[in-house]
Amino acid sequence: MSFVKSLKCRECGTEYPPIKIALCKKCFGPLDVVYDYDKIHISKTSFDNRPRTIWRYSELLPISDKKNIVDLNTGFTPLIKCVNLGKSLGIRNLYVKNDSVNPTFSFKDRPAEVAVSKAIEFGDSAVACVSTGNLAAAVAAHAGKANLPCYVFTPSSIESSKIAQIASYGAKIIPVRGTYDDANRLAYLASELYGWNIVNITSRPYYCEGSKTLAFEICEQLDWNRPDHVIIPVASGALLCAISRGFQQLEKVGLTKGEKIRLHGAQAEGCAPIAKAFTIGADKVLPVEHPKTIAKSIAIGDPGDGLYVLREVRRSEGVVGAVSDLEIVESIKLLAKTEGIFTEPAGSVTIALAKRLIEEGRIRRDDIVVCCVTGNGLKTIDAVSEYTFAFSEIEPTLEALSSSLG
Amino acid sequence: MSFVKSLKCRECGTEYPPIKIALCKKCFGPLDVVYDYDKIHISKTSFDNRPRTIWRYSELLPISDKKNIVDLNTGFTPLIKCVNLGKSLGIRNLYVKNDSVNPTFSFKDRPAEVAVSKAIEFGDSAVACVSTGNLAAAVAAHAGKANLPCYVFTPSSIESSKIAQIASYGAKIIPVRGTYDDANRLAYLASELYGWNIVNITSRPYYCEGSKTLAFEICEQLDWNRPDHVIIPVASGALLCAISRGFQQLEKVGLTKGEKIRLHGAQAEGCAPIAKAFTIGADKVLPVEHPKTIAKSIAIGDPGDGLYVLREVRRSEGVVGAVSDLEIVESIKLLAKTEGIFTEPAGSVTIALAKRLIEEGRIRRDDIVVCCVTGNGLKTIDAVSEYTFAFSEIEPTLEALSSSLG
Repeated sequence: MSFVKSLKCRECGTEYPPIKIALCKKCFGPLDVVYDYDKIHISKTSFDNRPRTIWRYSELLPISDKKNIVDLNTGFTPLIKCVNLGKSLGIRNLYVKNDSVNPTFSFKDRPAEVAVSKAIEFGDSAVACVSTGNLAAAVAAHAGKANLPCYVFTPSSIESSKIAQIASYGAKIIPVRGTYDDANRLAYLASELYGWNIVNITSRPYYCEGSKTLAFEICEQLDWNRPDHVIIPVASGALLCAISRGFQQLEKVGLTKGEKIRLHGAQAEGCAPIAKAFTIGADKVLPVEHPKTIAKSIAIGDPGDGLYVLREVRRSEGVVGAVSDLEIVESIKLLAKTEGIFTEPAGSVTIALAKRLIEEGRIRRDDIVVCCVTGNGLKTIDAVSEYTFAFSEIEPTLEALSSSLG
Repeated sequence: MSFVKSLKCRECGTEYPPIKIALCKKCFGPLDVVYDYDKIHISKTSFDNRPRTIWRYSELLPISDKKNIVDLNTGFTPLIKCVNLGKSLGIRNLYVKNDSVNPTFSFKDRPAEVAVSKAIEFGDSAVACVSTGNLAAAVAAHAGKANLPCYVFTPSSIESSKIAQIASYGAKIIPVRGTYDDANRLAYLASELYGWNIVNITSRPYYCEGSKTLAFEICEQLDWNRPDHVIIPVASGALLCAISRGFQQLEKVGLTKGEKIRLHGAQAEGCAPIAKAFTIGADKVLPVEHPKTIAKSIAIGDPGDGLYVLREVRRSEGVVGAVSDLEIVESIKLLAKTEGIFTEPAGSVTIALAKRLIEEGRIRRDDIVVCCVTGNGLKTIDAVSEYTFAFSEIEPTLEALSSSLG
């Protein structure tokens, strides 16, 4: 059974019953799911025999009937205590939340799993998304398991290497001539015409709920303690807002309480509209027209939740910072080398920003710090290869080996 | 503390203390680790509060001091009940053991984690391996975490895409002009000269122990029941032999008992020396000189454990079968589409063989069947892309969309 009470507009406060609705009809503001917290009775021991997936927190997820759940085993990914990396950066309690080992190898399995389950609850005949990467794979895999048709709109410039994973799950890929915006517009028209549920648009309030499970898991894996700092990659900003909401909800149901959790947003310099607004103290996020960074999966020039990221970060006394492509590659290698975790550029921005915040003294030696590593390095091999590795072959002799070792 | 009693030659039975030794000094036969089963007292409840990694079975792993363990969070990967795939193939109890979500995204983390830990126990100053893929990544990541130098010998024809992951972990990659055998020979000479531990050669008896944890996990995840069939990709054959040993050890310590477990070995037609020997009833495995299959990570033409695979499979009343590259690609897509699991060709051979064994009536409708999916599809995107996906872009209009949907 569901504890969802309503959907509530983040801007004007209008409430709606939990129907299929994308935005507030009055002011086009985003809608948040509101739960009936008084009726939710869970304690730390409630979780002892629950599945080790996002569904262990079912009271705080917006699915009414568990038979609608499309379960790929998403979530409860490892929270790795990174002793080596922490030493290298100069702190003692550094953790990585490793979503590179989710079923389709990124954090996007979380929102996709909730959204596709909700599409089934709504009786939708097909799901769709506009994406060139992690989201497309996550939605396609879940649609496959649910035996629902899936349409993935992409700009036609998409790399063929990404296509293979998405298409393997059985999705129909629609490469649209033009920009990402062109693909987006066509998807919207198609959803109106064919009734497809575009998971990150049509039922966005539910979609966004999936990502907050990261907050739940982080606290539970810290034995229900709260971290001092959480560093989160920022693209549209929906992930940071969801994690913030997750931490607040844990307090509301009485599972955690304590010190402030500082939320930090990490962007790439080549596409850092929110970091820029944060730095100059602005209340407005100016779009970046031509993003240019190897961290493509966070290169959103006009972030939908930009203002809310500023609000949540300022409220929590965190920062939004931008790191260079060189720092991103160095952080990929540092994380891999010290902890054996191989992430995509969008995941390593959090390590690069942690390094800077430690150097600046904003993170102290004994603080508990969690970096969210949101995706898998195998998806972005080219981004790293370009920057990094040159080899010369040697003859198969000990002499040649010895001189190559120097 | 360790329950290791000795190393015992699989051929002549000579026993050795658990030292650093690759092969039997008398007959060059492989050495198996022997445990003192009488002293091991574990029951099903022993595991309640243990780590969800291979180290939950530490009594049956050959590490003496747990401070030597290099722990990347390897193992206890999901055993997924595949209802959709089972329906499609016509059986009711089909499971996939999904090792694509191990830390470096293949089952090789299991033997690498044990071998690198053992190298530390031996006081070795560096580790190495000869590999072009999964093993190299696993050893490199573990060496990184252990802060040990790591040398990866490869034929110089290795694809640059594979290099990026391995090099990110900080390994020194040595591309050797010539064949895989040339690289292998140079690695052996280097280990003699420099004292490097080539994990899959120098301390092979320990290395092989890691993979048997698959058998332990499968039984535990089936609530300590035994499957009727386990289908395993076969390259050198070490994996199948290790899994067989794992099942036997669980019986020896009293954790399981019951019906025979049929072990089936899956090869690719383009490199199927053991399947061929099995089919013609031979007791000799004739090497394949020029392997040719998209399942490169199991394309070993002269499999070291070929005879032992024949023995274990015949003993268990299983089969060794070979599947075509087309069946491999179709199985990758079928598994992805029905269950959202994206594997490399070497993993999907097990699905293709399951399909055939069901069609032949060797696997029956109610049998409990486990397919070992040993690696991640993101590592072999090209293998699938070539075969599969052609798209034509469309204009961003509903008319164009409608005609493309047909």
